[in-house]
Amino acid sequence: MKTLKVIKIGGNVIDNEVNLASFLSDFSKLPAPKVLVHGGGKLASQLSKQMGIEPNMVNGRRVTNAETLDIITMVYAGKINKNVVAKLQAKNCNAIGFSGADGNVIVADKRPVKDVDFGFVGDIKKVNTEALEVLLQNNITPIFCAISHDENGQLLNTNADTIASEVAIGLSSSYEVELYYCFEKNGVLTDIDDENSVIEDINPATYEQLKKEEIIHSGMLPKIDNCFHATGNGVRKVFIGNTKMPFNNEQLCTTIQQ
Amino acid sequence: MKTLKVIKIGGNVIDNEVNLASFLSDFSKLPAPKVLVHGGGKLASQLSKQMGIEPNMVNGRRVTNAETLDIITMVYAGKINKNVVAKLQAKNCNAIGFSGADGNVIVADKRPVKDVDFGFVGDIKKVNTEALEVLLQNNITPIFCAISHDENGQLLNTNADTIASEVAIGLSSSYEVELYYCFEKNGVLTDIDDENSVIEDINPATYEQLKKEEIIHSGMLPKIDNCFHATGNGVRKVFIGNTKMPFNNEQLCTTIQQ
Repeated sequence: MKTLKVIKIGGNVIDNEVNLASFLSDFSKLPAPKVLVHGGGKLASQLSKQMGIEPNMVNGRRVTNAETLDIITMVYAGKINKNVVAKLQAKNCNAIGFSGADGNVIVADKRPVKDVDFGFVGDIKKVNTEALEVLLQNNITPIFCAISHDENGQLLNTNADTIASEVAIGLSSSYEVELYYCFEKNGVLTDIDDENSVIEDINPATYEQLKKEEIIHSGMLPKIDNCFHATGNGVRKVFIGNTKMPFNNEQLCTTIQQ
Repeated sequence: MKTLKVIKIGGNVIDNEVNLASFLSDFSKLPAPKVLVHGGGKLASQLSKQMGIEPNMVNGRRVTNAETLDIITMVYAGKINKNVVAKLQAKNCNAIGFSGADGNVIVADKRPVKDVDFGFVGDIKKVNTEALEVLLQNNITPIFCAISHDENGQLLNTNADTIASEVAIGLSSSYEVELYYCFEKNGVLTDIDDENSVIEDINPATYEQLKKEEIIHSGMLPKIDNCFHATGNGVRKVFIGNTKMPFNNEQLCTTIQQ
């Protein structure tokens, strides 16, 4: 099987023009097949404020009412996604932007209301890769924003890390998939203030130990759980590191595998 | 060659939820291959005002500065396009949303500054149908918003009628293309107040006569010129009529052919 890279970028790339240009230049040179998933960064909150709508966060998560969903759809699928696609075309990377509704790729359920009603937030239940595979076979690169749909006409705000892992899992029946999470650090660190304290390898056994010793804790736990969900479902390796990492084998980073 | 329909809808469909639902229901039942092109309606101006940016119109045309281009990209490629795609998926029509940057389909030049600087407005110079043909062969329906790009990373606001005719021309080497312009009237009328006064057929000879007699004038002239540009470059027939017209052979409308 061919190797395919799924790369996810977040706010530290999206919100910074210089970082974005540099990342897209590297990404365009990477041989196809490849998939990019981008988060939304701060632009959605900025537009909310400009429109006089205060972002409503509960436990650090955005509550997505109908107005907020419109803003997210405009910013993620419109402004960010189309500018990324246009910039990649300028570098001869033939890209097509996707939400999860396009090609019916990412089907989700609206999150059930428990303690909190998160509104139009989706939990992914199915990935259909047919449309993606047709494009990948023709050297066209899909660029995903963090939106899914429910197959009943409703768009849903969806976690970008999860979009990346589920697309990676979906494509792993046809490709050797490597999944790259790029963020502002060099990897999973034992000391958050020391960029050289990267934990280079995590497997299920060492993960248990790292959790027990509370070296990995709080916000990093769901991220690593999501990585093991991917490796447990067909993805060959997951890498966590900085935005140079997917393009440089020498770059220090965290590798997660079964 | 297979027949392919390119259908363009404007504000009377986009701005009205009932009309849009009815149109998308009809469109979803139409056999593939098919392409939809949508204008932007009033939503972009509404968002502009909400953000405190006054739309700047010269001779009825929108001047597109950087802020306005962002708004257009958010509304056309984000909110409208993704909601149309999600609603078509709900009706089992497998659709993928496109700007002209996606798949590098519509390449344009920024309009040169003469009397007026229209800003980030594009005049189409090339249509690449490779990505479209791959999707159409797989029964996936492209849904275009009215945005092109310049291959140097710049998105450009572009007339939706022109997007429709250029995509129709581009696909006419592989398909028998019929191009449908849907608007609020039953067709080109001899009396604007009489919906039964439809001119049923226009060819180059009768068009000259209709212009001479000033039966067709002002805003309708560039529209008809655009239709003859299509029929002169491979499109088999162009139809102008109401939003039921593409789905009903009995519907009164204007047919334009060489």
